[in-house]
Amino acid sequence: MNAINLDAMLARFDEHWSPKKVAQINDYDVRIVKVQGEFTWHQHAETDEFFLVLSGELTIQMRDRNVVLAPRELFVVPRGVEHCPRADIETAVLLLEPGSVVNTGDAGGELTAEVETLD
Amino acid sequence: MNAINLDAMLARFDEHWSPKKVAQINDYDVRIVKVQGEFTWHQHAETDEFFLVLSGELTIQMRDRNVVLAPRELFVVPRGVEHCPRADIETAVLLLEPGSVVNTGDAGGELTAEVETLD
Repeated sequence: MNAINLDAMLARFDEHWSPKKVAQINDYDVRIVKVQGEFTWHQHAETDEFFLVLSGELTIQMRDRNVVLAPRELFVVPRGVEHCPRADIETAVLLLEPGSVVNTGDAGGELTAEVETLD
Repeated sequence: MNAINLDAMLARFDEHWSPKKVAQINDYDVRIVKVQGEFTWHQHAETDEFFLVLSGELTIQMRDRNVVLAPRELFVVPRGVEHCPRADIETAVLLLEPGSVVNTGDAGGELTAEVETLD
């Protein structure tokens, strides 16, 4: 493994809501994703989920409040908490979660994405 | 939990080589650390270790090669691989590792730091 440049990795894809794996720590994945618009309400019953904004602005909507993240801001959605990410402008996010995590959690549906690995 | 601004967290301490916990994902810690100079050679037999440079430049010396990380570059030191971080200028790093990890791994010594939590 070599150093991984996040901007070089982000330049390799355009699609939204489709996380790409860029590294692995034990059984956790480091994933990057570009998002714009609104995702789907979902939860991950078994795991917390980490979001670090790299560019743009991410709103993590939860049932009782919203958290707005600018670049270099992070948030952990606790397991079992329903959330729906939204970005009014194109936004790049670093995710950290167990390698088994599916992006749409319990919701499934057409936004469910296979996680491609960027080598 | 609220949004965590990495720069605001980094502004809260000055000491080097003393990781601060800023978030938790399941049993993993997100830690930030300021470093300058050379650390100590060590390894973590039980876990990989994730480094993401936030500012400055970090050289991760390993026995067979060095990896140099600029801001927005990351690297995972595999478990059991001896490494010795070095920074010629003050450098801020985000670490991700199990909450049980001690910064000096198997080496111990005076650089071993308790991990303070920044709330």
